[in-house]
Amino acid sequence: MSEVETVTAAILVIGDEILSGRTKDRNIGHIADHLTAIGIDLKEVRVVADDEAEIVAAVNALRARYDHVFTTGGIGPTHDDITADSIAKAFGVAIGVDPRAVAVMKPYYDAKGVELTEARLRMARIPEGAELIANSVSAAPGFRIGNVVVMAGVPTIMQMMLAEVTPRLRTGARVYSMAIRVLYPEGEIAKLFAEHQAAFPDVSMGSYPFLNDGKPCSELVLRSRSEQRLSDAEGLLRRKLAAKGLL
Amino acid sequence: MSEVETVTAAILVIGDEILSGRTKDRNIGHIADHLTAIGIDLKEVRVVADDEAEIVAAVNALRARYDHVFTTGGIGPTHDDITADSIAKAFGVAIGVDPRAVAVMKPYYDAKGVELTEARLRMARIPEGAELIANSVSAAPGFRIGNVVVMAGVPTIMQMMLAEVTPRLRTGARVYSMAIRVLYPEGEIAKLFAEHQAAFPDVSMGSYPFLNDGKPCSELVLRSRSEQRLSDAEGLLRRKLAAKGLL
Repeated sequence: MSEVETVTAAILVIGDEILSGRTKDRNIGHIADHLTAIGIDLKEVRVVADDEAEIVAAVNALRARYDHVFTTGGIGPTHDDITADSIAKAFGVAIGVDPRAVAVMKPYYDAKGVELTEARLRMARIPEGAELIANSVSAAPGFRIGNVVVMAGVPTIMQMMLAEVTPRLRTGARVYSMAIRVLYPEGEIAKLFAEHQAAFPDVSMGSYPFLNDGKPCSELVLRSRSEQRLSDAEGLLRRKLAAKGLL
Repeated sequence: MSEVETVTAAILVIGDEILSGRTKDRNIGHIADHLTAIGIDLKEVRVVADDEAEIVAAVNALRARYDHVFTTGGIGPTHDDITADSIAKAFGVAIGVDPRAVAVMKPYYDAKGVELTEARLRMARIPEGAELIANSVSAAPGFRIGNVVVMAGVPTIMQMMLAEVTPRLRTGARVYSMAIRVLYPEGEIAKLFAEHQAAFPDVSMGSYPFLNDGKPCSELVLRSRSEQRLSDAEGLLRRKLAAKGLL
């Protein structure tokens, strides 16, 4: 098999409100789907509080380890929004109101007849050396510094920023996957499935239990960077399952 | 103010399927709500792959740092279920088929007329020194070893295991919270809100933006271990917002 390039990523969700349970995260699943689709392997997710030391430690641990880091949350105008300053601290660079950010925010607020107050200018604070990520919803930009992409926490805005930055991301060979739903519990298929995994060591296989009308069932997921190997492994697995009356 | 005891926790979600996006996590939010309600402060969440080295590293980092660690996923009967073995490795203890687990699983399978195969016995593998957590849905138990609680990934089973282990958990003073929804963007309330935070340093205040019919709005959340201080801070904040025509 030829050498395939893998590009890795981590997500860092920043926010007390996720940890308290008050807000349910809706970003991890979206980013995970998106990264898989564009050929980036999501390897780890962390959620930390709105706490500078925690954010700095997590950003530095993750950016050293993965090709990309995507953060969500904490870039608004209120006192508890400390992500931009924490990122600057993690990178050891200065931070201040960025004229490029002001230039995109001012027309937006002018058009609404709203003043660009000191609080709103907080959202124009961008670490030195960062490039901006446009926000067509509410103007205040995200940014990218080094391998860290810093996005809003509001899902609609985060999704737009992720789409905006995507053409600029380095990507690798994408992982293809398929799933077979078996209406029998995992215990019925485990032996056959383990043997099938051993026969296709280059195709990653996982089983995920689910309840169907309270009855335990199994979703068998096959993943590979080669569509041909995936198809071969799927076809043979279906035949093996059918031969045992499990499909 | 009297000294209040804080008890901390982390969640470790184990599963390739969450990282690929194929399965959307539904456990973090539930555990977060539950811990907040019983007086345990959730401080961090991590999601890692079904990879022994990753699980061992995360478990050891988190159990050293927090009072409790709650894991979900990877305790089923298939070859990709490696959580129990990884936990044993993290603790440096042996693991084998536990007669106590077999004793609860056998009647369940007998009643269904299903054989307790070698694959199913995999679910009876429990690290030495662990106590079992009952599974009234599908028999195969979770377990607790040291300060680590190991639960299933299927939400209904996880929720039942969490409820089952709860009476045995050390808890601290619970954090009370309340929220005020303001139909104005954060930029309008940021200054007033920062000043209010400064006036109540013992009440933690955060603002969370949300879109209402596409219009940016603010949810102001106040959190404190003292119901009295929370009530004082809420009352005064409502009066300040009303005086500015924001409520």
